[in-house]
Amino acid sequence: MVAKMRIGIIGAGALGLYYGAMLQRSGQQVRYLLRRDLEAIRQNGLQVHSVNGDFHLPKVAGFASPEEIGPVDLVIVGLKTFANQQLIRLVRPLIDKQSCILTLQNGLGNEELLAAEFGTERILGGVAFLCSNRGEPGHVHHLGEGKIRLGEFGGGLSERSKQLEEIFSEAGVPCEAVADLRRARWEKLIWNIPFNGLCALLQQDTSELLARPEGRCLAEQLMKEVVAGGNAQPLREKIDGPAFIERMLYLTDQMDHYKPSMMIDREERRSLELEAIYGIPLQQAKEFGAEMPLVEMLYSLLRLGEEKE
Amino acid sequence: MVAKMRIGIIGAGALGLYYGAMLQRSGQQVRYLLRRDLEAIRQNGLQVHSVNGDFHLPKVAGFASPEEIGPVDLVIVGLKTFANQQLIRLVRPLIDKQSCILTLQNGLGNEELLAAEFGTERILGGVAFLCSNRGEPGHVHHLGEGKIRLGEFGGGLSERSKQLEEIFSEAGVPCEAVADLRRARWEKLIWNIPFNGLCALLQQDTSELLARPEGRCLAEQLMKEVVAGGNAQPLREKIDGPAFIERMLYLTDQMDHYKPSMMIDREERRSLELEAIYGIPLQQAKEFGAEMPLVEMLYSLLRLGEEKE
Repeated sequence: MVAKMRIGIIGAGALGLYYGAMLQRSGQQVRYLLRRDLEAIRQNGLQVHSVNGDFHLPKVAGFASPEEIGPVDLVIVGLKTFANQQLIRLVRPLIDKQSCILTLQNGLGNEELLAAEFGTERILGGVAFLCSNRGEPGHVHHLGEGKIRLGEFGGGLSERSKQLEEIFSEAGVPCEAVADLRRARWEKLIWNIPFNGLCALLQQDTSELLARPEGRCLAEQLMKEVVAGGNAQPLREKIDGPAFIERMLYLTDQMDHYKPSMMIDREERRSLELEAIYGIPLQQAKEFGAEMPLVEMLYSLLRLGEEKE
Repeated sequence: MVAKMRIGIIGAGALGLYYGAMLQRSGQQVRYLLRRDLEAIRQNGLQVHSVNGDFHLPKVAGFASPEEIGPVDLVIVGLKTFANQQLIRLVRPLIDKQSCILTLQNGLGNEELLAAEFGTERILGGVAFLCSNRGEPGHVHHLGEGKIRLGEFGGGLSERSKQLEEIFSEAGVPCEAVADLRRARWEKLIWNIPFNGLCALLQQDTSELLARPEGRCLAEQLMKEVVAGGNAQPLREKIDGPAFIERMLYLTDQMDHYKPSMMIDREERRSLELEAIYGIPLQQAKEFGAEMPLVEMLYSLLRLGEEKE
């Protein structure tokens, strides 16, 4: 029997809605902060269209403000990082003495932001390998994958992170608690940095990009820089660059015309998560003496492209 | 008294039409290979709209094929380099024993191509600093600048190149014969490589690009790589990188929302001159042991962007 928790979802985009629905279906008590989907979900509940089988939750606890949610045991953060100036305000009403916070946001810097306000001991982070998007209000599409790797911001393999692993696994979400969250975050960046940026800049999906030798070569060169940036950090164990890169390219080749989130953000004229995925990683690499000149060029080009619009 | 020459213009875009018109006005016998402008020019002559004063040439020797032009003393080549597979076929009918060829095309590799067919001794090259564009058929606009630096492909300051300097100068085109054409070509690349590529990729003009610190910084980093690539070549005298870059940035800041030719080519959905401005310079830098990784990334991004369309 896994523990039952009060869970609050902040940033209920596709990721928040999907993981929230899976947890709720497994018996967890989930409350969602909603905006776009609020009315539809209150009226008709939440419909999940999943490669693993569709399901419908008729009764969903959706709220318009974090104050209405109130204190929970676990806050799951799925907010886009470009909205991080809202983060503390949105999370605070959900926190009481024993609450902990799991941020599944992209890139680096999110745990730091939360820890500065709520204390390192409350903070866990995770990287989500999830292909999902929102449909019309009240609908979420799970297109594939879904695994979460999570760990303590303060490091080490805690009881608490093992417990979250169990809760997600019980809910049908593959989950692995890891001792080195920093390493997991950098490993995710090895994929995110080339593919999010190149696909957004060129408006080409992963298959279009990798079909061309110069696209594949450029992605690989960027990955190499990120491996070196990550391995310059104080990791418990170094990343095996060549093997990791080969596996990432192999997995990406299996994806069929996948559009990374930043490409979709650009298509839909939203802001891009440039600081979390580029700015802060570049800064953290530099702090440990690693330069990533091609990554820096991609970051500059994305910034130049963004403010033009 | 300067020499009178029979001159044939191959590739009569804005550059070819403008220089041809200036030479013709000064008394040279100029024949143009025309396509788009042929009918208009045959009917109404050529109208030059110039910052230095407009003028009209009522009688212009325009032809539809190089065979109709026949042998000349000097062939001036203004063809876009992406059409270079046509170059030899278009130039050959203009060549007889004493003909020489001056290519004012962009980038590297054009003299080599001509020399392989017609012999090194016939070939001169020049870099043109000209802001011009075509208007409606029969009209050409000279927006500013216009200077040519030319020299022997075989190197050295020849009598012939001094004579061409005189002919252009007499025609109102500032011209300087140089002993080291290779150096002049690399100096031009220090501008062309950052500004053509960045402006084409981002669809921003030089003022938009340089208004942003990351745009200015990126342009400067690219320039530094090109300086190093150029200085790795067997030049008679090294390029003073910092001073040259500072001057280029200063001059570019003076230009008001200038659109480099590659940006216009992209806007108008023409091919881009990627081989002459990126591919061959990268290859020549490598031959002399110089890497230009940021230039290579820009080249890859431009190729990826181009074939998408």
